[in-house]
Parts: sequence; structure tokens; C-alpha cells
Amino acid sequence: MKQRKSFGSDNHAGVHPAVLHAIAAANQGDAVAYGDDAWTEEATSGLREIFGADEAFLVLNGSGANVLGLSLLLRRHEAVICAESAHINTDECGAPEQLVGTKLLTVPTEDGKITPELIAEKLSGRGDDHRSQPGVVAVTQATELGTCYTLAELRKITDFCHASDLRVFLDGARLANAAASLDCSLAELAECADVLSFGGTKNGAMGAEALIVMQPGLAADAPYLRKQLLQLASKLRFVAAQFNALLHDMAQLLAEGARAVPGIEIVRPVQANAVFARLPQRHIEALQQNWTFHVWDEEEHVVRWMTAFDTTEADICAFLTAIRETAST
Amino acid sequence: MKQRKSFGSDNHAGVHPAVLHAIAAANQGDAVAYGDDAWTEEATSGLREIFGADEAFLVLNGSGANVLGLSLLLRRHEAVICAESAHINTDECGAPEQLVGTKLLTVPTEDGKITPELIAEKLSGRGDDHRSQPGVVAVTQATELGTCYTLAELRKITDFCHASDLRVFLDGARLANAAASLDCSLAELAECADVLSFGGTKNGAMGAEALIVMQPGLAADAPYLRKQLLQLASKLRFVAAQFNALLHDMAQLLAEGARAVPGIEIVRPVQANAVFARLPQRHIEALQQNWTFHVWDEEEHVVRWMTAFDTTEADICAFLTAIRETAST
Amino acid sequence: MKQRKSFGSDNHAGVHPAVLHAIAAANQGDAVAYGDDAWTEEATSGLREIFGADEAFLVLNGSGANVLGLSLLLRRHEAVICAESAHINTDECGAPEQLVGTKLLTVPTEDGKITPELIAEKLSGRGDDHRSQPGVVAVTQATELGTCYTLAELRKITDFCHASDLRVFLDGARLANAAASLDCSLAELAECADVLSFGGTKNGAMGAEALIVMQPGLAADAPYLRKQLLQLASKLRFVAAQFNALLHDMAQLLAEGARAVPGIEIVRPVQANAVFARLPQRHIEALQQNWTFHVWDEEEHVVRWMTAFDTTEADICAFLTAIRETAST
Amino acid sequence: MKQRKSFGSDNHAGVHPAVLHAIAAANQGDAVAYGDDAWTEEATSGLREIFGADEAFLVLNGSGANVLGLSLLLRRHEAVICAESAHINTDECGAPEQLVGTKLLTVPTEDGKITPELIAEKLSGRGDDHRSQPGVVAVTQATELGTCYTLAELRKITDFCHASDLRVFLDGARLANAAASLDCSLAELAECADVLSFGGTKNGAMGAEALIVMQPGLAADAPYLRKQLLQLASKLRFVAAQFNALLHDMAQLLAEGARAVPGIEIVRPVQANAVFARLPQRHIEALQQNWTFHVWDEEEHVVRWMTAFDTTEADICAFLTAIRETAST
Repeated sequence: MKQRKSFGSDNHAGVHPAVLHAIAAANQGDAVAYGDDAWTEEATSGLREIFGADEAFLVLNGSGANVLGLSLLLRRHEAVICAESAHINTDECGAPEQLVGTKLLTVPTEDGKITPELIAEKLSGRGDDHRSQPGVVAVTQATELGTCYTLAELRKITDFCHASDLRVFLDGARLANAAASLDCSLAELAECADVLSFGGTKNGAMGAEALIVMQPGLAADAPYLRKQLLQLASKLRFVAAQFNALLHDMAQLLAEGARAVPGIEIVRPVQANAVFARLPQRHIEALQQNWTFHVWDEEEHVVRWMTAFDTTEADICAFLTAIRETAST
Repeated sequence: MKQRKSFGSDNHAGVHPAVLHAIAAANQGDAVAYGDDAWTEEATSGLREIFGADEAFLVLNGSGANVLGLSLLLRRHEAVICAESAHINTDECGAPEQLVGTKLLTVPTEDGKITPELIAEKLSGRGDDHRSQPGVVAVTQATELGTCYTLAELRKITDFCHASDLRVFLDGARLANAAASLDCSLAELAECADVLSFGGTKNGAMGAEALIVMQPGLAADAPYLRKQLLQLASKLRFVAAQFNALLHDMAQLLAEGARAVPGIEIVRPVQANAVFARLPQRHIEALQQNWTFHVWDEEEHVVRWMTAFDTTEADICAFLTAIRETAST
Repeated sequence: MKQRKSFGSDNHAGVHPAVLHAIAAANQGDAVAYGDDAWTEEATSGLREIFGADEAFLVLNGSGANVLGLSLLLRRHEAVICAESAHINTDECGAPEQLVGTKLLTVPTEDGKITPELIAEKLSGRGDDHRSQPGVVAVTQATELGTCYTLAELRKITDFCHASDLRVFLDGARLANAAASLDCSLAELAECADVLSFGGTKNGAMGAEALIVMQPGLAADAPYLRKQLLQLASKLRFVAAQFNALLHDMAQLLAEGARAVPGIEIVRPVQANAVFARLPQRHIEALQQNWTFHVWDEEEHVVRWMTAFDTTEADICAFLTAIRETAST
Repeated sequence: MKQRKSFGSDNHAGVHPAVLHAIAAANQGDAVAYGDDAWTEEATSGLREIFGADEAFLVLNGSGANVLGLSLLLRRHEAVICAESAHINTDECGAPEQLVGTKLLTVPTEDGKITPELIAEKLSGRGDDHRSQPGVVAVTQATELGTCYTLAELRKITDFCHASDLRVFLDGARLANAAASLDCSLAELAECADVLSFGGTKNGAMGAEALIVMQPGLAADAPYLRKQLLQLASKLRFVAAQFNALLHDMAQLLAEGARAVPGIEIVRPVQANAVFARLPQRHIEALQQNWTFHVWDEEEHVVRWMTAFDTTEADICAFLTAIRETAST
């Protein structure tokens, strides 16, 4: 089952209780600093799995994730094509220029969305050594203007870019919202990018963002550049715990609630955002009339319920109520 | 009264319970992002007061504070004189060079401490446009090798630097420990620097550091450079709350405990790290045999008890036990 | 008299014979390297005088002059407002971003000319630490599109900028052409800028450009930044000699030719681009019917003939022919 | 035959007459700017041939060549190991740090020469993301202290570096002098490096340096980085002409002189720095008693005489005198 509501609006700016709880729970005695700890391993392997990514790195804020991502993708003489309204252009106080040294080739858009046609307009002068050479296209999903690229639009951009020797960076500060809005998975969005940032802060974290490297071979420098770009937390487990909370806690809440319902069996340990449950066939069919989820094993009557970064406690409660009602029939 | 023990060693790397409590307490509904909130105002005004500083800025980690501080102090062609063992030289993956573009002129030391003589060795070539020009001397207090400069040593360096047209940057990731070790105030240490970093993370915070600007006129660019250097948290109140906890909570714990002791009156509201209490003269004298604190008003029998960033709950408990025992005599 | 024709078009790209001659003439034995020589002193004092400048620095190419100028004017978080068509935006392979770390805030123009209105459009967000702060406006004179700002237009920009806490940088790769086209002095153009580049290469030099600092107090860092930005020639006298040739040789050619004309007396030594000559009043009046120059001393019948960077030998020949014809009447 | 004397000491700082002549000769009408001209093609193909190089790029000064070379070899988090006395450390006003963002890991030496042992001392901390990672070793040949690495010493360094995943940059501002002093070819020196700078200015040019890329695959970014690092001359043919003069003119002088000697036949066109001559066997043997050169074709009695960048007219005269004396016997 996919919950569609985000933990809270950007304006709220508070921290989800599960995140606070996870932070407190991570404060158990000693841990090796700088990320060689169990919380970080859990978060990064979880992110790799969710995104189908080559590597994932935890950082401190969205600008940090964006600049780190661009620094992995750009050579010294390369420029970034992006919308005028892009966060990297308007809201990072010139960090891409000052810290990476790149030029931003901006295009005006009506709705914050760039297109292959707009990208193509910026490709003149390739091979001319007087010109900063376009190397990366940066898209933001959801955009700064509140719009979303459809998956088809994103794929068209990616195809165009890869055919034009351009890499794709995706600013995903609000990627979870986009996934919810488009009813697609984070992995489907991520496979349109070579590297992307992924925001936890706007979805209930206190301060936790990630850099997701999709393209194999690009991640080798990332640990050094993360440190150099001032994005390595010494007590990294507390950043990791925030992601773990956003990722797992809803699944665990769901599993605990469902386990208490007569006739339902949780058939696998819940370690990520999936809950595998066995229940009578007629209950499955009844639930599926109003809720969306997959039957995992038809013969064994096992279903898979997925939570996401934007699943709320209210979503879980509503679904558990439906399960209980169904089970009692 | 001055407590001498830090909240925990660097190896511990956990978070002080008061910090976790303060973070949770700050999670009350909405707040303006990026620092225009009450928690940030409290933290920065508190830091300004404690350090006698012109301005204070909250940042995300120690390297961030150091690089931000250097970027305020350096012109493009200037170099930093520091010990070979300096954190900015060995442990920031070249961030000062890459992000500020400065050269580090390192001097070998036996104990991590730089001296005017060692600084002087690096001053040849001033005015020669082929040479990177020494502009800043960076000292670390306590040093990376576990030593501390005495106040006299620090002042000698500062006097030498200012007479030699050099500014002083102090890396204070462990400044609270140094203050405790030297039995001096943070302000006494800070007045030896033009700009300093101040670490909360190694003293019980989860991830909270500050840049303290002592020299008036240097702070104007800091908000922009903090953002550009990827050090501005969107939910800044949670960074601020950590500092507030380190600063105030021990004083409040002390005040609450003392208020419950018969014969003791807390005569002023406790809003920072000072507790003003009235108690019988003979109790004052008895306590002073084993504990260090000042009598604030001899006629009124009012004393001042100070807590510091490194005051622990155990310290508070021990002192309250002594107060209660004295009061019962 | 003011000659209006440039030494040659940009396409020609050759070197004026006087420049080659001056280079050869400078090859006399030893000279202190890096600019502490007589040729450099002559060139820089000449440039200071012509521009009414605080300081002048010789550099190797136009991009070097531009980047050096911007680096003197910009703080780390500041941006440059310029036309989309500006050379610094389109033809320096991103050097301003990579070497200075600045953001270029470009505005579309029809004719390559920026206006106060266009500048004003880029001033929103001042004081917002998420935004790169506009600090400099860059104008090109003559523009990359072949147009020239009038003096009135330039002054309007300068007044607007200074009233708006913006500094003015002028890219003067073709400034001599603009002065010729507008029939104004280089000094009149220069006083509209805080710092400007001045091009010799497009006016007959082999490779010689200058940075002209108008605003007192800005030049202190320039020698270091020139070296750091790879713009200091070791055998600087050969760069200086090119400027000296462009500046003086035409004046000397004119003086030599005029000296040979009966009835004409050259009354001062020719050390720069001015020739002071005494000739009969009626010859002065006859010449002034077709040529423009000032009478310096009416009682003594002394006139001043000025050459400029764009004065050609053909111009000199034509003028000498006119002088001879007049003298023979 | 190999002439051992440089065109002039660094202190002389003048320009070789052949260079001035070549500059004047290159001033023939129009030429495409920025290097797409015959002079540049001749110079770069000549340099490629002499060095056995993948690519050669003409630049404006020695610091420019060094910084360009380092920028090709370094990733953003990598450091350069070099001698404390290295020009890149002491005499470029911090350009490597400011423009490339690299850290210099300097080692003290007695004689300006680095060794595998000294390099090895700087290799601790590899793989630790807090440390700037050594990526390049920079050697200067001849060194800033007037010493030369032997070919064996250089090869030992190169072998060590390549076995240790380090690239080798060679600062060759005085490489011609080193080749002369060691009696080896420029190619033998160059094959010890991945990238090197090569100085013309200290050997009689007015201002002409080159970047030589030995390692295939490294040159792709160089045209862009040359422009971005402000090292592209618009009238590049005049830089090229200087190299051509240094390279070819002595060979042509030798060929012209020898052609006039009875019994000597120049058997190939002289287009670079080699002269192929046929002369009687006994004359070959007589000359070889005092001069060093190779017999190219024993049966045909053809010898090869090579000139180098440091061959002087006096050297040519002395050798021609010997040839004439031998021929007359």
C-alpha cells in the first residue's frame, strides 16, 4: 500500500516525532564517528535499495547535496544548464560558482520545467575553447514552482541528455513529494538521473539529506568531496537515524498494528519499508477494493505492503482500521 | 562555582540528554526557517554575551566553522600560518585550499603550539608579489595534540600578530575543554582572537558549532558566506536549541535544586549560565572551603554560581549535595 | 589633432610596425625582470596620466585584465550584472566563475548595451543571504555587438550604480576604438568606471593589455592578484614597450615630420602623446579649417597636437602633408 | 652535434635575435587568431616530435604552464607532493591553491631534489576521507636550487610514482638547460613525466612557454583550461614563432653554413632541429674526434647533426669552423 501524503508541508518545518524518537534511540553509548556505525550502514543500504543506486552518502543540507552532486559530475570547464528558477541558481548564494567554479546556463521557463528544446538552445559553441562547455543538465523534481515533471517528461530529458553527451543531475529536495504526487516509486524517478540529491528535511527530518549516485563509477571521489565540502557530520549516526526513521518506522508501526489483528501473520522480519503479511484470500480481495498493494505469493496468500518517506501515522492508522474491519467480517 | 569536567570525551561521541531534551522541546509547531526564530536569537545573544563578541553565527560542523572563519579573514592572495598538526591542515581534506583558495604555511612544532618565533620564520617575502602573503595565524585551543596554550602564551601571539599586521583565527572545537583546564573564561580566550570557531559537538551537542566574530566590522559578509559554504541549516532552531541546552540547562538544574533547599533564595531569574542565590553567611563560608565561587553582594549575602559548557549533571548533583549538607548544619 | 582610424581591424590581427620596432629597441642588454624597469615605468606612468588613473598594471591578455579587475572589485558572495552578450559571459570559458567564483547575472539586450533599468531588474533579493549579492556592473565599451555607449549613457549607469552601492567595471578591450568613435578622451570614458581593462592587442600590439584602477584604494592587492592570476610577464619590459609604442611613436613621428617643415618649431620635448608646436597664426587658422586641435598659448602661437592609441602612420602622413602645404602658402 | 651553452642566463633576460627576427617575420598580413595558423601548427608539431609527446599547448608564462599542467592531472580532493623550494610552492603567489584548489604537501630537501623516500613519507592517510589525497608528484628539472636530477634519479621517481598511483608533473622552465647539462635529449627527460611544462622564456624567448602532455588521454580538457586559466594568446602565432625560432633557426644556420663547404651535401630538407649531411668518411672520423654526433647511414656516409633549444650562434660558428678546417684537409 502506498500512502500519498507527506509528513508535513515545508512551512511546518517541524520534526516528525518518529525522527525525534529515532535520534534519542541512537544515543546509546559509544559509536565510531564519521559514519562507520550501524545506523549509517542501515540508512545507506536502505537508500541504495530504494533507489536502485550505486551509492548513497548522507549530508547535512540540501545545498550541500546539490553542490556535492555537481562536483562529482563536472569537469573544471563545464557548465550546468538549468531553469532560471532552479534552487542552485537562485538560493544557494552562488555556491555552485564559488565552490565548484561552474557556470550556470539558465533558461527561462514558465513552470520551472526544462525541456529538451530549451536544453538544445544552450548547446551552441561546443568544441569552442572560448566557451564554457555544457556538461550537466540540472532538473528539480518537484520544481521550485510547485510543478512536477511526469515520468515521460523526465525520461525524454534523460534520453536527450545522454544522446548529447550531457549528464543529468536531479535536485530532489522534494522528491518524496513528487513520487507521491506522480504515484511512482523513488527508483523510477532516480533512474532518470546520473546523480541526485534526496531531501529528508522537508519530509520530517531535522536536518538530513542524501546524495544518491546512480551511475556506477562516479562515487569514488564522493567521500573526499563530502568532507571537503564541509558536509561530513562527526556524529553521523544521528543523521542516519533520521533517514531510518523516515524509512522504517512507518513500516514497523504498520507491522505491529497488523500483527495484533487476529488472522494476520507477519511472515518476514521488518527491516526496511516493506511488510509481508499472510491473510485470508477473501480479506485480501476485500481490502484491495479500496487500497492499493501487491499480492506477493498467490498460493501462500502473502501480500506486500510498502511504506514510503511520505507515509504518515494517520495513513497507517486509517489503513489499520480498514484491516481490522475487514478481518472482523 | 565552576565545574571542571566535560560532558563527555570526544570518543564517547554521544549526545547529552539535556541536548536531546532541548531539541524535542524546540519541536513546537511552526517556526520561521533559517534562523529568524526565538531559539536562534537566544543562542546567538547568549554566545555574544559569553564571549564578549561582536557577532555569533551557528553552523553545522567544525570544518564549516573553520573555513567560514578563514574566509572572513583572508584576502585572495593571503596565506595562513599554522602548526603542521593543525586540524585545518590535516583533517579537512584540503577545504581551506579548495574552498577559500588559501595557502597554509605550516611550521613543525613539538606540542602542537605555535609561537611568535615560529610565526616570524614565515614572514620573509612580504611585499614580494611572487609570494602568497601571510595574513592570518591560526591557533587551535586546546591543540590537536592535547596541549593548551596558557593565556599568557596566547596573548603573546596575539600581540605579535597584531603588531605584524596579521589577524588571529582560533580553532575552538575544544575551547570549552581548554577553558576548563586553564580555569579561565571563554571570553578571556576569545579576546585573543579576531575570529574563532567554537565547538558544541565535542561537548555534548549532536551537531552544533558556532563562529564567533570578535573584531567589529568583520561580520557583515558572514551570513552570505555561511550560506555559500553550505553551513546554513533550514531548521536552524534545532541547532540553536543544542547550544541553549549546553549553556542554560545546567544552570537551571542547579537553580531548581537549590531553590528546594530550605534557607536558600534564588534572587534573579535564571536565563543564562548564572545562578544568583542568597544564603546565610556561615553557609557561604562553609561551602567556599571546598568549592569555588564569588560572593556577588557581601551585604546581602548573595553569591553567583556559574555553570559552563562542560558542566555535567554529576557536577550539579555533587554540588547540590554539598549545598544541602551545609544547609542542614 | 585627433586621428580617428584604428591601426587595424580585429580580423587583421597583425602587429603595428612601431610595436615591433619598440620591442626590438627594448632588447638592449639586461633589465630587472617582472617590471622594475624603465620601459614599465614609462608605460604605467603614461597610462596613469592618460586615464587620470590611480594605478595601472600591465597584463598578458584581455581575459586576464578582465578577471583581474573583477577580482579586485568583488567580495566572495557577490555577483556581476552584465549583458548576456558580454565577453566575460560568453568568451572566457567560465573564467570569472572558476577563478573568481562569482555569479554572472545576465540580462538580454538588443544592442549589447546595459541600462539602469536593466540593472535595477537584477537587484531584488539584496540582503537575503540565500542570494548571491550584486556587487559589480560590467559594461563593455565598445560593446561586443559593435555599439558604443555615449558618454551620457555611461555616466547615467555610473551614477545609478554608485547610488545603488554597485561598483562599475569596464571591459575596454576596444576602448580606443570607442574613444575614436565618440571623439572623446580615454580619461572621459575611464572616469565612468571604478576599474577598467584597456586593450592594446586589438590596436596593434602583439599581446599587451592593461588594468586601469581609477578608484583610489583598490590597487593594493593588484600586484599579488596579477601574479596569482598568471598575468605577470617575467620580461615585462617587452609588454611595456608595446604600450609605449602605441602611445608615443606616432607623436614622435609627427614631431619629427613637423620639425622639418620651415617655420615650425617644436617647443617641448616629446615624451608622451602630445606635440607642442609654434607656427604662424595664419597657418594655425588655415589648418584648423580641416583638422581638429587646440591652441595651447594664443599669445605665443603654440598649439597642441595629440595622438592616440589608434593613430596610424597614414593619419600622421596625411596630417604632415597638410602642414607642409599650409606652411608653403 | 650537441651544443651545450644556453642562449643566455636567466639574469640576462633579453631576447635572442633569432626570436625577434621570427616575430617580425610572422607579422605577415592576416592570420586566424587563437592558434589556427601555420606558425602554431609548426611549433606544436615540432614540440610533439621533439618530446615524443601526445600533445603540446603554447601558453604565456611559466606559472601558467605549471597551473595548467596541475589542473589536468588533479582531481578536486588531491594534493601535490613537492619540494619546499619548488617554484609552484614559493613563487606563484599561491596560484595552485587559489586557481586549482590543491594542497601542496611540501618536503624539505637539501638540494631541491625530491626522492622516492621523501615522497613515501607523505603517503600516510590514503583512503582517509579527512585527508587531502596525494595525487601528483611535482619535480623541477633543473631545480630551483641549480641542481639537476640524473636520468636514473628521475626514472626511479617515475617508477615509484606510477607504482603508487601517483602522476608525475615536471616543471621544465629550465628543462633545456638540464638537457644540456646531462647531455640527454628533451624526450628522455619528458618520458619521465605524465605532463610537463617547457620553458622558452629563460632560453631566449620573449615570453613563450609550452605545456607538454605525454600521457595519452590527458589532453582533451587542455584547450578549455588554457583559455579559462587566461593563457590563450589571441595572436598566438607570435608565441609560436618564438618557439619555431628557438627550435629551427640554429639548424638552418648550420645547414646554410655547411652547404657552402665544398664536399658537403645536405641530403634532406631542414624543417626541424636536425641536419642530415653527406661528407667523406675520413672527414666524419676527423670531426668525431672533437665533436659528438651520430652517423646516420654508414654506407652512404650520412651523419645527423642535432641542434637544441640552447644552441647558440657561437656554438654554430665554432662547429662550422671545425667543419671547414676538416674539409680543407
